[in-house]
Amino acid sequence: MARLDYPAIVQELIQQLRRLPGVGPRSAERMTIWLLKHGQDCSRQLQGALAEAVERVGFCPTCGFYAQDAECGLCSDTRRDASSLCVVEQSSDILSIERTGAFQGHYHALGGRLSPLEQVGPEDLRIEELLVRARQPEVTEVVLALAADVEGESTSAYLAGRLASLPVRITRLAHGLPAGGGLEYADELTLQHAFRGRTVMGNGEVP
Amino acid sequence: MARLDYPAIVQELIQQLRRLPGVGPRSAERMTIWLLKHGQDCSRQLQGALAEAVERVGFCPTCGFYAQDAECGLCSDTRRDASSLCVVEQSSDILSIERTGAFQGHYHALGGRLSPLEQVGPEDLRIEELLVRARQPEVTEVVLALAADVEGESTSAYLAGRLASLPVRITRLAHGLPAGGGLEYADELTLQHAFRGRTVMGNGEVP
Repeated sequence: MARLDYPAIVQELIQQLRRLPGVGPRSAERMTIWLLKHGQDCSRQLQGALAEAVERVGFCPTCGFYAQDAECGLCSDTRRDASSLCVVEQSSDILSIERTGAFQGHYHALGGRLSPLEQVGPEDLRIEELLVRARQPEVTEVVLALAADVEGESTSAYLAGRLASLPVRITRLAHGLPAGGGLEYADELTLQHAFRGRTVMGNGEVP
Repeated sequence: MARLDYPAIVQELIQQLRRLPGVGPRSAERMTIWLLKHGQDCSRQLQGALAEAVERVGFCPTCGFYAQDAECGLCSDTRRDASSLCVVEQSSDILSIERTGAFQGHYHALGGRLSPLEQVGPEDLRIEELLVRARQPEVTEVVLALAADVEGESTSAYLAGRLASLPVRITRLAHGLPAGGGLEYADELTLQHAFRGRTVMGNGEVP
């Protein structure tokens, strides 16, 4: 006797949902059961939202952030500080920084980072576009906000080299203890970075 | 300065994905970013799978399992044992049992369980349909495979009452220790059930 399973079309939906990040076989199944139960309305809304997003949302050719109908809420905002430019790997990193409220300038998403293993070279990233923007006379600082891992670091070093000849200050994000993290949870490298980057408190002087 | 956020259409997709079970704000955001990155193809496939599933998959009017194009792989399988009928709450419970290989008969999904709090009464469940099926001369046993919680138990008791006048054996799933579970992890009620339902081993006799 053939073991019973979901009808082919249901299995196909489970497979499609499994491709999404963070969705395993069990959660894809639960989502599918939910969608079948809630029927046409919910599914149509999700289909519509998917179609619209993929159709009408692209990337801003200047900063690389998500742009709806080719209009970028970031580059068109004249109240932002045009003197500083923050370089990130992914478009989604822009919102992570934006939510902190710590930066008021403009952003530049590279679209990835240098990765010899994944065969991503400088020509695959938006580096020429960055150099053009960094050459604008109003730009005085370029903040490198890439990941604190090997590939992020080497991409930062590469960019610093390319930007070195321009009259701009090149900075990068501080590395150190994460907020709320005790010393016992910090790995050696983080602790090393935290030591090297130690800052003066009160009247004390670090030798 | 207005805080930057995703374009409206992207936010709408995040909202739609958040409605799925087990999807929180962060995972909806990650799925959306993935879908935007992987573009038209992936999104179209997911849209297509969704549309097909909702359009072509319904519930079998006999057993309540998922039926593709109104054809039920379960009821149409003549090799299944027609003498026993297993009653479950949800259509998806059928597959959970089926995957164990422990049951070869036919199923009957009620479409829920009695719940005074959620205003689900006997008329909201497929109980009349169950009585009709249980009256078929070939049926000799009805296995109640409902949840081992208060509502599942009371639904089982109600069904046992309704089925009592029919010439069928009414059984329900054993309650006891879950496989691999030590006594230290079992709650009092589970342990009580395990004691009450204790079975004979070897030559020993339980008084």
